[in-house]
Amino acid sequence: MAIGDQILDLAAAAASGALAGDARDAAVAASRKRLNDFMAMGPAAWSALRLALSRALRTGATERGRLEGCLLAQRSAEYALPAAIGDYTDFYIGIHHATAVGRLFRPDAPLLPNYKWVPIGYHGRSSSVVVSGEPIYRPLGQSRAEAGDPEFGPSRRLDYELELGFLVGPGNRRGEPIAIGSAESHLFGVALFNDWSARDIQPWEYQPLGPFLSKNFGSTLAPWVVTFEALAPFRAACPRAPGDPEPLPYLNSERNRASGSVDVQLEVLLQTEAMARSGLLPARLSRSSFVEAAYWTPAQLVAHHTVGGCNLAPGDLLGSGTLSGPHPEQAGSLLERTAGGRQAIALPSGEHRTFLEDGDTVILRAWCERSGARRIGFGACASTIHAPKRAP
Amino acid sequence: MAIGDQILDLAAAAASGALAGDARDAAVAASRKRLNDFMAMGPAAWSALRLALSRALRTGATERGRLEGCLLAQRSAEYALPAAIGDYTDFYIGIHHATAVGRLFRPDAPLLPNYKWVPIGYHGRSSSVVVSGEPIYRPLGQSRAEAGDPEFGPSRRLDYELELGFLVGPGNRRGEPIAIGSAESHLFGVALFNDWSARDIQPWEYQPLGPFLSKNFGSTLAPWVVTFEALAPFRAACPRAPGDPEPLPYLNSERNRASGSVDVQLEVLLQTEAMARSGLLPARLSRSSFVEAAYWTPAQLVAHHTVGGCNLAPGDLLGSGTLSGPHPEQAGSLLERTAGGRQAIALPSGEHRTFLEDGDTVILRAWCERSGARRIGFGACASTIHAPKRAP
Repeated sequence: MAIGDQILDLAAAAASGALAGDARDAAVAASRKRLNDFMAMGPAAWSALRLALSRALRTGATERGRLEGCLLAQRSAEYALPAAIGDYTDFYIGIHHATAVGRLFRPDAPLLPNYKWVPIGYHGRSSSVVVSGEPIYRPLGQSRAEAGDPEFGPSRRLDYELELGFLVGPGNRRGEPIAIGSAESHLFGVALFNDWSARDIQPWEYQPLGPFLSKNFGSTLAPWVVTFEALAPFRAACPRAPGDPEPLPYLNSERNRASGSVDVQLEVLLQTEAMARSGLLPARLSRSSFVEAAYWTPAQLVAHHTVGGCNLAPGDLLGSGTLSGPHPEQAGSLLERTAGGRQAIALPSGEHRTFLEDGDTVILRAWCERSGARRIGFGACASTIHAPKRAP
Repeated sequence: MAIGDQILDLAAAAASGALAGDARDAAVAASRKRLNDFMAMGPAAWSALRLALSRALRTGATERGRLEGCLLAQRSAEYALPAAIGDYTDFYIGIHHATAVGRLFRPDAPLLPNYKWVPIGYHGRSSSVVVSGEPIYRPLGQSRAEAGDPEFGPSRRLDYELELGFLVGPGNRRGEPIAIGSAESHLFGVALFNDWSARDIQPWEYQPLGPFLSKNFGSTLAPWVVTFEALAPFRAACPRAPGDPEPLPYLNSERNRASGSVDVQLEVLLQTEAMARSGLLPARLSRSSFVEAAYWTPAQLVAHHTVGGCNLAPGDLLGSGTLSGPHPEQAGSLLERTAGGRQAIALPSGEHRTFLEDGDTVILRAWCERSGARRIGFGACASTIHAPKRAP
C-alpha cells in the first residue's frame, strides 16, 4: 500500500500483530507475489483491510509504532504487475477518440451506428502486458505500400494510447451474467494503462477481425491500483447529450446514471532521449479526464462483458480505450494530437514529433481532486521505446 | 497417452521403472495436472518419451509387463483441458470459409486485399475455452433489428466452427520473433477445436474492432493432442493457385512450401435431442480437410504471431479458423452449410436445422490416413447447447 512516497509492506504488517481478523486475512492474501487472491476476496475484505490500516496509522493509535516498522521508500522498491492477468480486454469507450479516429475514415458519419448501444470492445494480448518501467520494443510488421506489394519493416507510426485499466475482483461462472446493479463490486480498482499501437500495421491487418500485431507487441500497466472505495468522493454522472439513446436494461440502473463514472484527471508527458540528456523535464502533450472522455461506465463494461455468459476471473484487465477530450490538446494518442501525423509537435529540446522515436519515454499520470476531499494520486505508467531487438 | 481405446497413465509409467533418463523426466512433467511443463520442454523431450514408450510397448520388450499395469479404459477417464491456456488466438486461414463469408457482404470481391499477404488473426477469450463434453450456454446479446432500436435476447443464429487448435510448446521472449525455419518446433501438437459463434450478435458488434461477445461465451477443445512428430507421415504442400503472391520472406521457406501443411481429414456431426431419444446416431453435416482448406501453415502462424515481438507461452492456443472446403457439403459452419440460414438441412429424425437449437450436440472428428502409414485418429470434440442459465 502506497502512503505518500512510502510503501507499507503488507506481508510485514500481517506479521507485525497490528492487524486482526478479516483485515489480517486480507493482508496475508495481499502479501503474495500477485494480488489475484486478494482481488478474489471482494469488497468486504478490501474494505476491512483499508479501514484497519487507516485506524492503525492514526496519530496516537497503539498499533502505529508497529506499522511504522513496515514502511519502506517507494524508490527502493522493484515493481511487478499487480496481478497475473488471465485475459485482457480492451474497450473503446472514449467517444471523442472514436469520433476523431472515425472522422479520418468517414468524415460525414464518424461514429458507427452501434457505438451508443454497444460498449465496443475486443480481446487483447495478456502475455505482453508489462509493468511500468519495462521497455517497449518497436514492432516489425507489414503495412500497405502506396502501390504494389505490402512493405515489411519496423513500424514508422508508433503511438501511445492513454487509458485506464480496470482490474477484476471476484469473477463469475461461465453462463452466469453479472447484473448492472452488482457489476462494480466485481472490479477491484483502477490503474493507468498504455495500449501502445502501430498505426501503420493496423490499417492493413485489421479487416475483418480487428487489430492484432498492431497492438499485441506490448502494453504497459502501472503497478499501483486505486480501489473503487478510495474513489468514492470523486464519483460523477456519465455525461449524455440530448438524443443519446437510453441504454438497454442490462446496461441501465439509476445508480449507474447518477454516479457510474469517476472524475479522474489525466495527462500524457513525453521525454525524448535528447531531452533527458539535456536535463529537460518531460513535456506535457495533453490533458484529459475520464469523466469527460468516457461514454460508458466501468459497471457497464462488466455487465456487457458477461451478458452473453463470458466468465471473468480475478486479475483480468479491462482497458477503457483511449481517453481523449473533444479538443486536440486533450488527445489521448499522437494519431489525434498530430492530425494523423500531419502536424508535428514542437518539443522544448527543439525536436519535433509526429509519432514516437526510439528512446522516447511516454509517461501517463492521473489524479482525483475535488474541494472537501483529499487529493488522490495514481501511480505513473511509463515506458521507453527501444529499437527492435532482433530481425526475424 | 491414448493407445486404441485405452489410456497409458504417464504418472504410473514414470513410477513403474519402465522409463529412464530424458523419457522418465518427460513422463514426470506430463503427469502434472496440465501439460504446460511438458509442452515447455520441446521436441527432444517429447520425442524421447514417444520413442521410449513405443520401444517398451513392443511385443517381447522387457518393460512391456510393467507398462501394461499402467493402462486404463478411456471410457473410465474424466477429461480436462490439456493445458492452462494463457492466451488464445484465432486465425482465419480457411480460404474457402473466408471467401464464402466474404461473398455474403461483397459478392464481387469476397476476399479482402490483405488475405493472401497477412495470416489474419485476432485474440480470443481464453477463460471460456472448455474441454470436450462441457455444456455450451446459448448467449444473450444485442442484435440489429430490421428497424429501430437493437434487439436483446438469446442468440437465434448459434453456430459451430470446425477448427484445428495448435498448442504452443516452448515460447519466446517478448521482442524476439521466431523465424519461419524453427517455427514448427514451437508447436506441441494439434487438437480439434470448435469456436462457437453467434451469427446475429456478430454483425452488430464487430465494427470496428472485431468479434467479441459473439465468440467469447465458449469454445470447445478436444482433450487429446496429436503431436507434430506423429503427423510426420501425413505432411503435405500448402496448395497455391496461379497468381497467388509469394509470401514475404518472414513467412517463407523451402520446407514450409514443400511440406508445411498436414493432410488431416475432418468431419462435423450433429445429434439433436430427439435423435438421441430415438436412438438415431449423429448425422454427418459435412466433410473437409485441413490441407484443402488452409491457405497458411501452422509454422507461418507462429512466425507471423511473433514477428512484431509478441511473446507466446507454453499452452497458448492458436485456432486455425473455420476449415471449409470449396463446396457447400464441405462447409465448416452452418452459416455456409445453410447459405446464411436460407437452406435448412433435413435430419434423419425429420427435423430441420438452419442454426443450432438447445439440446443439439455437435461432434467434430478428424483422422489422418495414407497408404503405407498407420491411420491416426484424433480425439473427438463435442458439446451440447444448453438454454441460457440465467437472465441478467
